[in-house]
Amino acid sequence: MKIIRTVLTLFFLTLLLSASAQTWIWFPGDYENWLGNQMNNRRTERGVTIPVQWKLDGHEPLMIFTKTVELDEPEEIEVYAEGEYILTVGWRIKYQGNKKGLTKVTIPAGKNELKIKVINYATVPALFVKGKSINSDETWMTSPLDERYMTKNMKHPDSPTGYFMNAGSGSLNDPNVLPSAFRLPTKPMEAVDVYEIDGGRLYDFGKETFGFVKFHNLSGTEKLTIHYGETAEEALDVENCETFDIVDVPAGMSDYIMPRSNALRYIFVKAENAEYDDVSLLYEYAPVEYRASFKCNDEELNKIWEVGRYTLELTTREVFIDGIKRDRWAWSGDAYQSYLMNYYMFFDQETTKRTMYTLRGSDPVMVHLNNILDYSFYWFMGIYDYYLYTGDLTFLKQIYPKMESLMDFVLERRNDRGLVEGLEGDWVYIDWFDNDVDITGEVSFEQIVFCKSLETMAMCSEILGVESEAKKYDALAKDVRLKLADFWDDQKQAFIFNRKDGVNSDQITKHANMFAIFYDYVTADQKEKIKESVILNHAISAISTPYMRFYELEAMCSLDEQEYVYSEIKDYWGGMLKLGATSFWEKFNPEHKGLEHYAMYGRPFGKSLCHAWGASPVYLLGKYFVGVKPTKPGYQEFEIRPTLGGLEWFESSIPTPNGNIKVYADKQNIKVIATEGEGSIIFKSSKAPKVNIGAVEKIDEDEFLIKINGDGAEVNIEYKSL
Amino acid sequence: MKIIRTVLTLFFLTLLLSASAQTWIWFPGDYENWLGNQMNNRRTERGVTIPVQWKLDGHEPLMIFTKTVELDEPEEIEVYAEGEYILTVGWRIKYQGNKKGLTKVTIPAGKNELKIKVINYATVPALFVKGKSINSDETWMTSPLDERYMTKNMKHPDSPTGYFMNAGSGSLNDPNVLPSAFRLPTKPMEAVDVYEIDGGRLYDFGKETFGFVKFHNLSGTEKLTIHYGETAEEALDVENCETFDIVDVPAGMSDYIMPRSNALRYIFVKAENAEYDDVSLLYEYAPVEYRASFKCNDEELNKIWEVGRYTLELTTREVFIDGIKRDRWAWSGDAYQSYLMNYYMFFDQETTKRTMYTLRGSDPVMVHLNNILDYSFYWFMGIYDYYLYTGDLTFLKQIYPKMESLMDFVLERRNDRGLVEGLEGDWVYIDWFDNDVDITGEVSFEQIVFCKSLETMAMCSEILGVESEAKKYDALAKDVRLKLADFWDDQKQAFIFNRKDGVNSDQITKHANMFAIFYDYVTADQKEKIKESVILNHAISAISTPYMRFYELEAMCSLDEQEYVYSEIKDYWGGMLKLGATSFWEKFNPEHKGLEHYAMYGRPFGKSLCHAWGASPVYLLGKYFVGVKPTKPGYQEFEIRPTLGGLEWFESSIPTPNGNIKVYADKQNIKVIATEGEGSIIFKSSKAPKVNIGAVEKIDEDEFLIKINGDGAEVNIEYKSL
Repeated sequence: MKIIRTVLTLFFLTLLLSASAQTWIWFPGDYENWLGNQMNNRRTERGVTIPVQWKLDGHEPLMIFTKTVELDEPEEIEVYAEGEYILTVGWRIKYQGNKKGLTKVTIPAGKNELKIKVINYATVPALFVKGKSINSDETWMTSPLDERYMTKNMKHPDSPTGYFMNAGSGSLNDPNVLPSAFRLPTKPMEAVDVYEIDGGRLYDFGKETFGFVKFHNLSGTEKLTIHYGETAEEALDVENCETFDIVDVPAGMSDYIMPRSNALRYIFVKAENAEYDDVSLLYEYAPVEYRASFKCNDEELNKIWEVGRYTLELTTREVFIDGIKRDRWAWSGDAYQSYLMNYYMFFDQETTKRTMYTLRGSDPVMVHLNNILDYSFYWFMGIYDYYLYTGDLTFLKQIYPKMESLMDFVLERRNDRGLVEGLEGDWVYIDWFDNDVDITGEVSFEQIVFCKSLETMAMCSEILGVESEAKKYDALAKDVRLKLADFWDDQKQAFIFNRKDGVNSDQITKHANMFAIFYDYVTADQKEKIKESVILNHAISAISTPYMRFYELEAMCSLDEQEYVYSEIKDYWGGMLKLGATSFWEKFNPEHKGLEHYAMYGRPFGKSLCHAWGASPVYLLGKYFVGVKPTKPGYQEFEIRPTLGGLEWFESSIPTPNGNIKVYADKQNIKVIATEGEGSIIFKSSKAPKVNIGAVEKIDEDEFLIKINGDGAEVNIEYKSL
Repeated sequence: MKIIRTVLTLFFLTLLLSASAQTWIWFPGDYENWLGNQMNNRRTERGVTIPVQWKLDGHEPLMIFTKTVELDEPEEIEVYAEGEYILTVGWRIKYQGNKKGLTKVTIPAGKNELKIKVINYATVPALFVKGKSINSDETWMTSPLDERYMTKNMKHPDSPTGYFMNAGSGSLNDPNVLPSAFRLPTKPMEAVDVYEIDGGRLYDFGKETFGFVKFHNLSGTEKLTIHYGETAEEALDVENCETFDIVDVPAGMSDYIMPRSNALRYIFVKAENAEYDDVSLLYEYAPVEYRASFKCNDEELNKIWEVGRYTLELTTREVFIDGIKRDRWAWSGDAYQSYLMNYYMFFDQETTKRTMYTLRGSDPVMVHLNNILDYSFYWFMGIYDYYLYTGDLTFLKQIYPKMESLMDFVLERRNDRGLVEGLEGDWVYIDWFDNDVDITGEVSFEQIVFCKSLETMAMCSEILGVESEAKKYDALAKDVRLKLADFWDDQKQAFIFNRKDGVNSDQITKHANMFAIFYDYVTADQKEKIKESVILNHAISAISTPYMRFYELEAMCSLDEQEYVYSEIKDYWGGMLKLGATSFWEKFNPEHKGLEHYAMYGRPFGKSLCHAWGASPVYLLGKYFVGVKPTKPGYQEFEIRPTLGGLEWFESSIPTPNGNIKVYADKQNIKVIATEGEGSIIFKSSKAPKVNIGAVEKIDEDEFLIKINGDGAEVNIEYKSL
């Protein structure tokens, strides 16, 4: 296992390194959206394919790739395209090729504009050019329009319309494998147990997993029936299990691999008039790197971190999906959490970008992302986070026009107070509520994420130098921010849930309140009040989804309540482990018994037992215990605030774009190694600390700061934990 | 030939009749746009495919078809789809099928909502449902969005967003032929002459034509080279002919048909190591009906009308294109003339709709139609004309959202005076000018067609009951109309060409002036002045394209100058016939000699010798000599103003949606038969006319009006032509 991973890592690094040579390129977003939706639309439910329930956007069928080159001598290039294409050099030379076609063309010496038009309706027009000095990469420009017929406005970087952009790419570097042929890799996996039962065989693969079932040495050619289960009960309940396959195997097969991959731990196989030697699985996985590590004195917490990693790994596919059995779809709210967890685990940039493009689709915007009001807002924040963690300015530039058009859509639908409301057709989701909640009118939670989205727009406009837009969004954000006060109830010391016709309702839930804390939308004093009157108040409905527990615990972490969070993690996630979970669930209610745990939506096995939003401890531990976060884009500057939070010790490595930050902490020592950027270690100590490199600065009572360089040297601090 | 046409007509009528039973349906515009662009992208130039030079729009890859049915008893339906699909009945029943898949489903008795989602990236999602009472037709609703997630606004007929519409269809009624498999029909055609020359064979098909070259009894398997020519000179000039095919014929073929159809009169064939018995052509044609006729005492004019019909027939393909050799593309300005000619010839509604959808594509609008400012404006006018001639309100409803978004695009790009200018990237075309014309700033011609487009928007909004929009466009039109006065030069008695920084230029061309006449934007007195000072003024550059001669002669017709027009037609179009034209040309200069006639763009055979805009006499004769035009949508009311214009007599039949209007006129008699609607015959007579049916009303000095019913009775008028 270790060896395989090393080999994979080397393979992956090779891909990354060769990316600078030449790579498949396309119109940014089009391929990502196409690929993500190919996956989205592979969901089945009891044998029937269930396409996404929101609008699916297509791609530009005609793409123009341009590049101006200057050559001292003529150069022969090889041109590969996905689609039919025509190549023009200046106005002079024309060549063309078919699908998969390869053309060798000699480009004359001197300055030349290469223009390659690729047409493809079925899949996304893509291009691969290989030469001595001329190679397809992100320096090529892409547009569905001919440059001759563009206005300045379209090409002007300060007012991007999204129709003339640097090419998109994504580490697809083999000219002989078309981008549309991209598939996640697989590797063989054996069942750990087999039981003969009820005229069939029940195979147990030992843990939640995902892949293609394979029959070995099949003879006889009739019907194979496979019922999948995340539990043995599900696989054996052929009337109620969520997924199954019934296949008429073609004659003459010896090994047979099921055409579609599925989530499973168990499969129940029945074969009519067929014999086979064995069944195994081709585990289908995203080739992520294990770039983070975490160990501490608490073995249960270590296990939670590992199962969290595995949950995130399984739900990392072509894009980040919610759950591997159900919905097998990219949802913006769910994905937002995957992004954050990913920065503390795999630091996988491609999957993050692909997911954001898939969620957003193309213009014009007709509905909110996934039809959900709040899910549009998470998308804005996700983009800024991505830029902050990775420093990838190219992506920000490329996606900014889509941010603008989505925000235009949001702004057009405000009420006369300039606030957002769920209009007919909008789904105001927020969370699964166990009791009835009236979600109409101005919902405080929605205004908070709307405000944060406007601030995000202002920041991104500022970064890209679009000053007028930055000012506009800043003013809008300030206006909404002021109006948040309307929702504050001084008596209840809480944000009320919603407001209709100028009247506040009586409803209070935790959601708006906890977001206000970590968005810093309230004073320190208010934060403490909210903690007591809402978060720790048993009269307020408890949160039952790991989805919103993510933010509840984040709010508590931001109030330095790591000890509380540690205990909640053990309780809630430890509770799932005690029930035998090998990945974390969509929802968990400790009160439930037996099969009750697996039911949802009135279906006995409706619940997803491997749900990305279940993995939040990996984020909370990395960001608020290990305490690492970037303060300037791409970890040029960062902060480390190691916090034991009830642990004796931990040691962890957190990935940065081109390196990592290693942190060890116990009650007397903090050790840090960083390999890029400049950082500040901030910590509390009841005694004056000592450090081997750099100077100690006292910044508050019992609080100290040490500046460090990302030079790979170990910074060793002696201190006394409070 | 006659027999074949009758059979075809019957076949066509059968198609139309069966359309009410069940037909393939899709999202309005998506299939039309897809099909039109499949054709657009078949253009080649010396062996290389030339895709369109404007933005190509894709289709919605996921389409939701819905229909609510009420059944007394359960009904079995057959479901065919182009794409993968899933069928839901209410929330209860789910079925699915694959590409070309057929599912038989029994729909329970009672009230049920059928929802069928079809996914297809490569081609357009389409549906065919066949049952006893449940059949796919235009009563089904289509949307890329789930109805549950739509706002009222999206579904509200008064504020259509174009995302929830009655299904589109187009007489594709065979469930076993997928819409993407649609091809124009072909029929065999023999060459009339063969010449052995220069080691090859030159075949003459006797006239301009179009199709697939077919080799009979081919033996030997090597290279076939076919050079196409609209003239013998072109086919034989293998270095300069515009189109050729070089094919390595696969082994073992006996008959071989070229994969791509081409324009030709001649082909020059060379075969290496291959023998064949014969070469013929599969003539590829749009199955239009010859619904109009025209005969008069002047045989040359009769020939011009027939060659005009043939020119229009050849350029009527999946959509109306400019020329069959070049560009083989749908251009909005060219197509606008095809629409008008078509109403006086084939009355082919499907091709008209397909062309308008193909030209417009999808939202968002990024550039003008075909990148040309004026070509956006023709598109608006074409839609109103279509409604006026056909009365097809469904189409107007379906396309109105696209009219709105294109007009929004136009309005956003006005200058600070509220007028249009060519911005960077816009092509301000108007016409091919032989001398240098400065087309920058406010061009009077563009304001005139802009004004007409705004009036069109106001009328269409009014028809659809969108009052607020009607008012808005009406006010905008009035504003532009007032500003047209800025371009009027009292001294020159003409609209000057353009205006920059508030200063009128010295340039005058005929274009704005002639449009102002037939748009009635000037007084009767001004019209007469323009006629003298511009149209008949030899100091103003003559128009050299049939494209703008169309409007020049229309302007003269609207000034009752039919005699002048008659003589111009004989001169100009008769001139082409004298040079042996079998279809009318893109451009004709009587001064040219020999091969000069065929050159264009610096290419010896660059000129298209079969160009739709060359066929304008068929429109001018029908509308201004026979004098038929609708005055209420779909010929509910119409006018007939028979005008001999120098002819001794004519007899003609002009199509109406469900019938025709037959007109005979000589200097003593006018005879009219109409089969639908109510009409007025308006004519001049130097004596009091007599009529067999109805009453004669004197409406002006020597001018009379007779009201008629479309009851099929012959109205016979005795009069004396002035």
